[in-house]
Order: sequence, then C-alpha cells, then structure tokens
Amino acid sequence: MARNNTEPAKRGRGRPPSAEVRRRILETAAVVLVENGVSEVTFDKVARRAGVSRMTLYKWFRSPASLALAAFEDTYADSLRPESTGDLWTDLRTHLRGFVANLSEPRLGAMVAGLLGSAQHDPALAGEISGIYTRPRREGATELLRAGQERGQLPASVDVEVLVDQLWGACYARLLLPEGVLDEAFADTLVANLRALSGTD
Amino acid sequence: MARNNTEPAKRGRGRPPSAEVRRRILETAAVVLVENGVSEVTFDKVARRAGVSRMTLYKWFRSPASLALAAFEDTYADSLRPESTGDLWTDLRTHLRGFVANLSEPRLGAMVAGLLGSAQHDPALAGEISGIYTRPRREGATELLRAGQERGQLPASVDVEVLVDQLWGACYARLLLPEGVLDEAFADTLVANLRALSGTD
Repeated sequence: MARNNTEPAKRGRGRPPSAEVRRRILETAAVVLVENGVSEVTFDKVARRAGVSRMTLYKWFRSPASLALAAFEDTYADSLRPESTGDLWTDLRTHLRGFVANLSEPRLGAMVAGLLGSAQHDPALAGEISGIYTRPRREGATELLRAGQERGQLPASVDVEVLVDQLWGACYARLLLPEGVLDEAFADTLVANLRALSGTD
Repeated sequence: MARNNTEPAKRGRGRPPSAEVRRRILETAAVVLVENGVSEVTFDKVARRAGVSRMTLYKWFRSPASLALAAFEDTYADSLRPESTGDLWTDLRTHLRGFVANLSEPRLGAMVAGLLGSAQHDPALAGEISGIYTRPRREGATELLRAGQERGQLPASVDVEVLVDQLWGACYARLLLPEGVLDEAFADTLVANLRALSGTD
C-alpha cells in the first residue's frame, strides 16, 4: 500500500517525525515503569526497546526518573477539575474516591509512590513532580474547598490550604507510610470526620 | 594506667565487648547519615570509619538502609508519650509542634524523608520503619485522640484512626511532597481547623 503513496514511502526511508518518536519513547517507558518500577526505567533499556538512540533520550529528558515521570503523566493523566454538584460534601466524596481509586490501583499507586520516593533523593525530580503532577492537583483541590466555603458549608475561619493536606495529604501519607489501608472507606471517612466535627453528619 | 588494671589490659588485647562495638557502629552510621544522607550509609564506609570488619555489619544488619534506620532511631528517639494536660486541644498543639519541630530540623527531616523514600523501593525496610518508628508513634497519637474523645472533646462519631492521618499524616505529606511548608504555624493550623469545624475556636 505504502508503495502507492509517496509520503509514507519517503518517511519510511528517512527519520520518523519527532512527535512520533516521542510517543513511542513515552509508551515504552510507561510499560517498563508499570512492569518493573521506576528504578528500572533506564535510558539504555528504553532506547533499546523503543528502537531509538540513547542520544535522543539525553536530548529530551534530564534523567531516567524525569523520563519515567513524563511517561507516567502521559499515560495516567486523571481529571483535575471534576464537575461540581454544588454540594461540598458530595463533591469531596466523589473527588477523594476517584483519587484513592487511582492511588490504590496497585501498579499506578506503586508508580506514584516510587516517583515520590525517588524525589526524596533528587531535588530536580521533586521540582518536576511539583510542576507536572502535585501542584495542579493541589490547586484544583483548593478551588473545590474554597467554593464550598463561599457557599457557607465550611466556617470562614477554616484554612483551606491546610485542609487540603488534611484530606488529599492524608491519602498520600497512607500511600507512603507503612501503616494503614488506602481504600474507598478511608476516603469516605476523611469526609465523614469533617462532617462529624461540624455537626452536619 | 591500664597496665595496673588487669581487666582493661585484657580487653585492650582482646576484642571489645559487642555492646561497645555496636554503639560505635551506630554512632558512626548516624554521622554519615546526617552528613551525607541515607544512600551514603554503606557497609564499606561505616566499617572503615568505625574500625570494624564488614562481616560484623553483615551479621547485625540486614542491609545498609536497615543500619541507617537503627542509627536514626538510636540517635534521635523522641518522646512517644508526652504528658497529657487533660485538654485535647492543648495536648494536640504541643504534640504536633514537637513532631513538626523534629521533622523540620533540616538534617533530621532529610533523614526521615530519605528513609521513607528508600522504603518505597524496599518492602523489608518499610516493615522495619513500621516496627521501629511509625507504628509506635501512631499508637501514641491514637491514644491521645481517644482520651480526648472519652472526655467528650471529640464527637463519638469521629474515627480517631483516620483523624491521626488528618493530623500527623498531613505533616508527613508536607514533608514528602514538593509543595507546602512544614512549620509551627502549620501544626497550629491543623488543630485550629478542627476547632473551627467543631465550633470551639
């Protein structure tokens, strides 16, 4: 077929366009990340399996961990701004259930934990995780709480920035510390505790 | 001097007692851990600096990370069961301020973050951290909250196990995620948010 079409034939003999190469690299890195963990995402292995030169990887990615992060974000980008129902408690429960479902999916949870673990020894990776992953999610969470506060469902004296850590942060703690289970019941109880304290349960 | 005293002279020519060797190993490992981070705590380096054989280290410690953890716990053991004043809010603020002061002391915070980071890639280390460090602390925290609940300062419907994650877990999240500052004001606001929700602020 391609023989009857000048464009593909030309491409076949030349280099594939860089967007296509990048896609192949990210998909390959995602497979290695899921199958073997972040420490196995090396330039050598990904270059070999994606059929590209290591030089190409050095050009585009600061480090193997940075490549792993890009692959993770590319493959598993979740929704940042869920629809609001107009009720804070419903929104929180829905949002936290989705977040926990992602983090407690074994392979995805291991990816997030592995990336955050490696970031403890790699400040540049920590900066990249912040820009690509954690900061935008924190902003979405703050927005959701602030909207609830404006509707009067949270006292004005509540610090919503800190409340983000008392909800989403608590989930990260369960993911990263050896104790405790991270499941839907945990997500629901985070919200139920706030309601119990505020006397709206 | 030792020449006039049979016991020390004997010891000087023989092997030092194992408690003394263990102490020297842990102190050496703690220095390396603080100066260079968990990844630099290797059996080679600690054996050389403590003047013991690597075999001794292999005998007592499962892995270099496990040695680092033992050194950390030995050097920086904090108080697990602070005195209670009989007022939950005062106790929580005092306890969380102390916890945050430890975690935000740069070298100590880096030690905890580094150990927990390495644990993401080392399930056996995670188990050891749980036994030595996080589980006993979680139990102390739960006890403190339960006492407050029994005094009627928390609604009976609050799940104190999950509330531990909404206080101490939130601190770990600030330590381990790239966003947010971990300081005394954060500790105070964690408690203030619960009081604001419960209408006791």
